[in-house]
Parts: sequence; structure tokens; C-alpha cells
Amino acid sequence: MKTETFSQLDKVIHEKGRMAIMSCISSHPDLSFRDLKDLLQMTDGNLSMHIRTLQQAGYLAVSKTFLENRPHTSYRLTQQGKQAFKNYIELLAKIVSWNQA
Amino acid sequence: MKTETFSQLDKVIHEKGRMAIMSCISSHPDLSFRDLKDLLQMTDGNLSMHIRTLQQAGYLAVSKTFLENRPHTSYRLTQQGKQAFKNYIELLAKIVSWNQA
Repeated sequence: MKTETFSQLDKVIHEKGRMAIMSCISSHPDLSFRDLKDLLQMTDGNLSMHIRTLQQAGYLAVSKTFLENRPHTSYRLTQQGKQAFKNYIELLAKIVSWNQA
Repeated sequence: MKTETFSQLDKVIHEKGRMAIMSCISSHPDLSFRDLKDLLQMTDGNLSMHIRTLQQAGYLAVSKTFLENRPHTSYRLTQQGKQAFKNYIELLAKIVSWNQA
């Protein structure tokens, strides 16, 4: 076990809500705010706050388009976000492997 | 992917420092305060705070004995702590498996 692995976990992604958002968008690109809210059972305020944090870290990109004449906002991971999430999951995998019987 | 898995992660264990402490003590029972401090490169204050949180959750038990005539404090996981850590690692394993290529 390398104890520095724990401190290497990206604190932006490690928060449970943001981990869930990154995981959802990673497997389903172009989810809308409404999709995420329904999937994650978060309040508007909570979801907005986490999305802002992920955007500020450069991990999420926002697309604003029109869908059936209505404004439509969707999210995808940036290249930097994909790499950061991949690194994060690799560290978690190590931690799991050390701790599983 | 079950999105409720993320919210089920035990927040006492999810904090990176406490995750590291639980992981160390789980694989090496009876570590002393000094051992943990050296392994995890934490300050006394930080380590004490996390240990207190884990004790208050009922996850850590403290043994105070004498070793070569000097007081010696060591830590081990309680039954409840072992179970909580096992559950936590099982949830992490699911999250890793969903997100690995």
C-alpha cells in the first residue's frame, strides 16, 4: 500500500456528488441539467454548485443549443476532465485492490 | 450504474485522510499514533482530529498500554469499523467497475 495514493485523490472529484456527476457524464455524454437532476436526485442549488465547481476546474464543458425550439443545456467532460477522472478511478482501483480480501 | 451508490458512501470514511487511516489500520492492526503519523505524513493536529471522528463513529478502538516502561497508544478497528470499511470498499469497487474500460 502506498499511503501517498490517498492524498493524490483529486479533491474536486472526490466529493460524492461530483463523483456521481463525473461518472454519469463520463458514461452518458450530453446529459442535460434535468437528466442529471433526475438521475442524481439533487436539488437545483446543489447540482448547480457542483457543476460550477467542475467547470471552474476545467473538467466540464457546457453546450447551449435549442431542442424543439426550447433552450437546451447539456454537459460533457473536457479532455482534461476525462484524464482527471481516469486518473482518479485508477487510484480508487488501487485502494480497492489493497483492501479486498 | 446505480446512482444511489454514490450517496451511500459513508461520509465518515470517505474523507481522504480518514480513508487512509482506516486502510492502514485495517491491514496493520495495533498501529501507534507515531506509526500512523509517519506513514501518513500528517500533523499531530490533523491526525488527532481524524482519529477522534473515527472513534466517535464507533469505528476505532484505542488501547493504552506500556511498552518498555513508556505509555503506548495503539489503534484497531472495532467490529463496527471493520463492517463499515468493508461496505465502503464494496461500494468503491462497484464505482470502479462501472468506470473502467
